[in-house]
Amino acid sequence: MKRVLICVSYDGTSYSGWQYQNNARTIEGELNKALTNLHSEPIEVIGASRTDAGVHALSAMAVYDTNAGMPADKVAPALNTKLPDDIRIVWSKEVEADFHPRHRLTEKTYEYNIWNSEFMPPMVRNYYYHVEKELNLDRMNEAAAALIGKHDFKSYCSVHTTADTTVREITGICVYREGSQVMIKVSGYGFLYNMVRIIAGTLIDTGLGRREVSFAKDALEKCDRQAAGPTAPANGLVLKEFRFLE
Amino acid sequence: MKRVLICVSYDGTSYSGWQYQNNARTIEGELNKALTNLHSEPIEVIGASRTDAGVHALSAMAVYDTNAGMPADKVAPALNTKLPDDIRIVWSKEVEADFHPRHRLTEKTYEYNIWNSEFMPPMVRNYYYHVEKELNLDRMNEAAAALIGKHDFKSYCSVHTTADTTVREITGICVYREGSQVMIKVSGYGFLYNMVRIIAGTLIDTGLGRREVSFAKDALEKCDRQAAGPTAPANGLVLKEFRFLE
Repeated sequence: MKRVLICVSYDGTSYSGWQYQNNARTIEGELNKALTNLHSEPIEVIGASRTDAGVHALSAMAVYDTNAGMPADKVAPALNTKLPDDIRIVWSKEVEADFHPRHRLTEKTYEYNIWNSEFMPPMVRNYYYHVEKELNLDRMNEAAAALIGKHDFKSYCSVHTTADTTVREITGICVYREGSQVMIKVSGYGFLYNMVRIIAGTLIDTGLGRREVSFAKDALEKCDRQAAGPTAPANGLVLKEFRFLE
Repeated sequence: MKRVLICVSYDGTSYSGWQYQNNARTIEGELNKALTNLHSEPIEVIGASRTDAGVHALSAMAVYDTNAGMPADKVAPALNTKLPDDIRIVWSKEVEADFHPRHRLTEKTYEYNIWNSEFMPPMVRNYYYHVEKELNLDRMNEAAAALIGKHDFKSYCSVHTTADTTVREITGICVYREGSQVMIKVSGYGFLYNMVRIIAGTLIDTGLGRREVSFAKDALEKCDRQAAGPTAPANGLVLKEFRFLE
């Protein structure tokens, strides 16, 4: 028996998110099906994190156990022949039998992608949130800076959370522009349910001048979901980097 | 009766190309249906150019005639409410009654998009052709330079062409890189069936070292489709700019 770690990249457009569901297509469900087929034994992956319906990932992580003889590094190319073309395995490798992806210290980077001009080409519609009016990035970056560090992010968490604590640490946020594209890049050791999307919605409102620059910080201090901005749409969000720190 | 010119942007992934077909979804078919619905009278557009199945456009042009009272510039936002979200009207304006989009001198720019690294994220799979091995852009640009100007492009034209002449003029070609993305940008006054995709296939073979730098020029002189490289896949191609020159 060996434990295999896989790095998964997916276009979330056609999926009801990561987590397995009986009656809907999910990333976890497709991985289980393809792995069970590949190794000819029932396999269930353990994911390191979940994403909502429509959210994308460049590097999500999962492990599974198998008795199959295939070398772990050969799993990636072999599994790609079994998966739909909107899910790709970037690499695969063997890890220790007790390696649990949710019990490790990890740092993740999410990117929230905004198309910031009057016209958005239809080719990018599933990957960008369209904001027509020009965003003021200085205001957004100033507001974002107040969120860096260890805080109670209750205001930036869906009320449907099941987390024990809403304290999290953000290690970096920056907002930058490349032509019509505005990216909000957020790194941290862990994130609450909808946290990056609520941060994005709050910063977008600030960048449009609908809120004061101090709004993001004031919202943080109130520890109340009502105090922060709206949850930005799922399709703009990408889980971009995933690092195991130990 | 007035003639309206519309600029159309579309994601060609789900369409069997531009041209109307009885039993398949096409861009022209969707435009006719939406305009007929919008103006409550039977409408058929006249397109300025056609694209194959899977090819995209940022600015394709078409005209149509209508008796409806709606000001021409209001057509774009109104029509967008009737169209599927992978087709968008960028703008609309009234033109003279005898303005025919295929009888005008025009210059078009196509871009052929290549994802040039070992791993291609699934989010871009419908918009880039994946070439894993590193392309040599110096070789590609040198080969491309020989195609600039007025030539008989018979070698760079599908044998299924219906064109009277295969002489065309290319006003510019360049190949450039942005990270993992390599773009082949081709401008000219008119293009033959599959011309840009055959140029792309030929330059890719040259960039991979499968062909000599002189191959593109030699192929041109042979006036024989067999002499040039393969037709690169449709999904990498975008009709990027369309200019009426008179």
